Amino acid sequence: MNTHESFTFIEGGVCAPEGFTANGVLAGIKKGRTRPDLALIESEVPCAAAAVFTRNLVKAEPVKLSKKHLAGGRAQAIVANAGNANACTGEQGYENAQRTVRAVASELGLKETDVLVASTGVIGQQINIEAIEGAIPSLCAGLNRSGNEAAREAIMTTDTCYKEAALSVELGGKTVKIGTMAKGSGMIHINMGTMLGFITTDCAITPKMLNAALRESVELTYNCVTVDGDTSTNDTLFVLANGLAGNRLITGKNADYRAFVQALTAVNREMARKIAADGEGAEHLLECTVTGARSDKAARSLAKAVISSSLVKAAFFGKDANWGRILCAMGYSGELFKPEGTSVFFRSSAGEIEVFHKGVPLAFDEANARIVLTEGEVAIRVELEDGRGEGTAWGCDLTYEYVKINGDYRT
Amino acid sequence: MNTHESFTFIEGGVCAPEGFTANGVLAGIKKGRTRPDLALIESEVPCAAAAVFTRNLVKAEPVKLSKKHLAGGRAQAIVANAGNANACTGEQGYENAQRTVRAVASELGLKETDVLVASTGVIGQQINIEAIEGAIPSLCAGLNRSGNEAAREAIMTTDTCYKEAALSVELGGKTVKIGTMAKGSGMIHINMGTMLGFITTDCAITPKMLNAALRESVELTYNCVTVDGDTSTNDTLFVLANGLAGNRLITGKNADYRAFVQALTAVNREMARKIAADGEGAEHLLECTVTGARSDKAARSLAKAVISSSLVKAAFFGKDANWGRILCAMGYSGELFKPEGTSVFFRSSAGEIEVFHKGVPLAFDEANARIVLTEGEVAIRVELEDGRGEGTAWGCDLTYEYVKINGDYRT
Repeated sequence: MNTHESFTFIEGGVCAPEGFTANGVLAGIKKGRTRPDLALIESEVPCAAAAVFTRNLVKAEPVKLSKKHLAGGRAQAIVANAGNANACTGEQGYENAQRTVRAVASELGLKETDVLVASTGVIGQQINIEAIEGAIPSLCAGLNRSGNEAAREAIMTTDTCYKEAALSVELGGKTVKIGTMAKGSGMIHINMGTMLGFITTDCAITPKMLNAALRESVELTYNCVTVDGDTSTNDTLFVLANGLAGNRLITGKNADYRAFVQALTAVNREMARKIAADGEGAEHLLECTVTGARSDKAARSLAKAVISSSLVKAAFFGKDANWGRILCAMGYSGELFKPEGTSVFFRSSAGEIEVFHKGVPLAFDEANARIVLTEGEVAIRVELEDGRGEGTAWGCDLTYEYVKINGDYRT
Repeated sequence: MNTHESFTFIEGGVCAPEGFTANGVLAGIKKGRTRPDLALIESEVPCAAAAVFTRNLVKAEPVKLSKKHLAGGRAQAIVANAGNANACTGEQGYENAQRTVRAVASELGLKETDVLVASTGVIGQQINIEAIEGAIPSLCAGLNRSGNEAAREAIMTTDTCYKEAALSVELGGKTVKIGTMAKGSGMIHINMGTMLGFITTDCAITPKMLNAALRESVELTYNCVTVDGDTSTNDTLFVLANGLAGNRLITGKNADYRAFVQALTAVNREMARKIAADGEGAEHLLECTVTGARSDKAARSLAKAVISSSLVKAAFFGKDANWGRILCAMGYSGELFKPEGTSVFFRSSAGEIEVFHKGVPLAFDEANARIVLTEGEVAIRVELEDGRGEGTAWGCDLTYEYVKINGDYRT
């Protein structure tokens, strides 16, 4: 971690910044669910808004609608559901996304275009819109300052734990807060917004600068996490900035902007790690850091190739120090590096071992390696001799449980 | 299958064409192995030779050496071992590949550059060269016309069955034969030669045309098969053509060339299917065919994206007709297509069902779908309305067994 950072992690999530309330209720979108499945976040004043959406050509209906609503760079509320992705559902699906937004807007007295919408769940089935519409009045009525706790539950699907984070950062003497929650444990891959991620902040910043900050931070965080190589139809990351912190409005790439990006990156990095650690069936969080690459971009690309390899992932499940697969994955990444200048280390709270030194295999202690790899969080460190580029990517091991979860998710 | 094809599949493998002998012996390269681990193929006369090698930047030592030997487009023998990949082994590894070649050349009275070498197995450990050198005299002495049976065993690693095929084709009144054997069940991905594949033919063809024919056929076969998304350090596909069929020498892209390419493609397609069906831990061979795409290349690319998706693969393991994941995978393939003109079918020997029709989900019989998906070979058919492009790719489901095999392969 950078030691010059001026931010501090704090308790809470999307309600940590000034002026945000949230809630989550059980609408009954998918039968059998007992935890909330419909989430809402509202700011008491209009916000600058920005988003990163899936690059998948097949986009879910809420993605299409939210994109349209974001055209002006403003929004005030986000409604999201689990249990149904509302993707590949055609015109009826689009209308259902509209009906969801309309019900929320009407209840909260907002314009429809001020409401963003996101869905996650099974693809290709029409959503139970009656259940959603029926639940929206109580969802809106119950908005409160600790509603992040119900909301963070309401977006979970195969997630085994909720994911949220918050921090505060000083900008020109004012305390600015950033809060976030996300869901995601399968169908996550590099170059995605994420599954669903929502960020709130009381920072005063223009929509244009908010958008730039979001994109900068995503490149180093959400775009460096992979669970299974699939990029979904629904991935959405929203940020709402309501300006209530009272800091001087950020209108350009000044020092306040840089501090804000740094804080935003920290909070997104925290979420990227949480998502990787909660990868479907995962037993180990894997963090791969590459140094000495030709560029930062090359380093990230190499780290992503390592973390994406099914063979690497399966080896870590087996606590097998099979560094050959790491070299192999780097080799097909498309990035140039000198294998003969490459060194590989494994590190965890149980210690660090070097297994490959400047192109030469080392005779390491297999029993010790297994101890290092038994920890829940394992770091793969790759040192190259090609330049000064650095990058990190996050992922998880490939387990029986992943196959089990995804072998029968729909039925 | 094309009904205008003039070839016929025949019994046998690499010894089916005139003038080829083979053998396989147990050298003891990896302890505990009881089947042969060292294979040899020889032609009684010098051959035109060509190869496709891994595109991985990290190339095994035998790949580097064979590349050099192939510079002149001629060769006469191939030696291959299982049990050790001789990759990431530095200068000593390269010398060991040279020693292997030297021992074979000396025993057979060939020039070293006439001998090609390939290895498969664990990465990053020095190979037991003494075991190999000790076994080469008996390996060479035992070359015989039915030695394909021992050779095909000697290249297997996690393969559950040997893979070979042969066919004959009429070229200008002469019978030309093509034989092949391959190994591969993990670490296989599109855009690879394969793990190890060896093709023999008695066709008279120049090295240049042989190389062109190999590349044409690979694009439609080996490059359309994927098991786990990993491309190995060792993947090698060799072809030797000794000319003993007596057909008119193929020197350009004439009718004989086209017939030869067609036959070569057929034999390689057969092997691609066998490799996919024997994917590590696989219970289902998946064949995805896309029609109506913007181009053949786009169709292949879409089919490959489907067959590569971990979520699609896991769904087929669970016999779950989760077509949404197919749309999703196509969506991130990078190819353009109209989702609203897309239809999806599942077919097996138990029947065919349509699950998505021109952009609209169909209410299909889940029980019937499960029956279709229970068969060992399942076809995914995607019809688009974007053009006339067609393409097919092969893969397999993702199972517990895959994770088990790869969680503890090395130790």
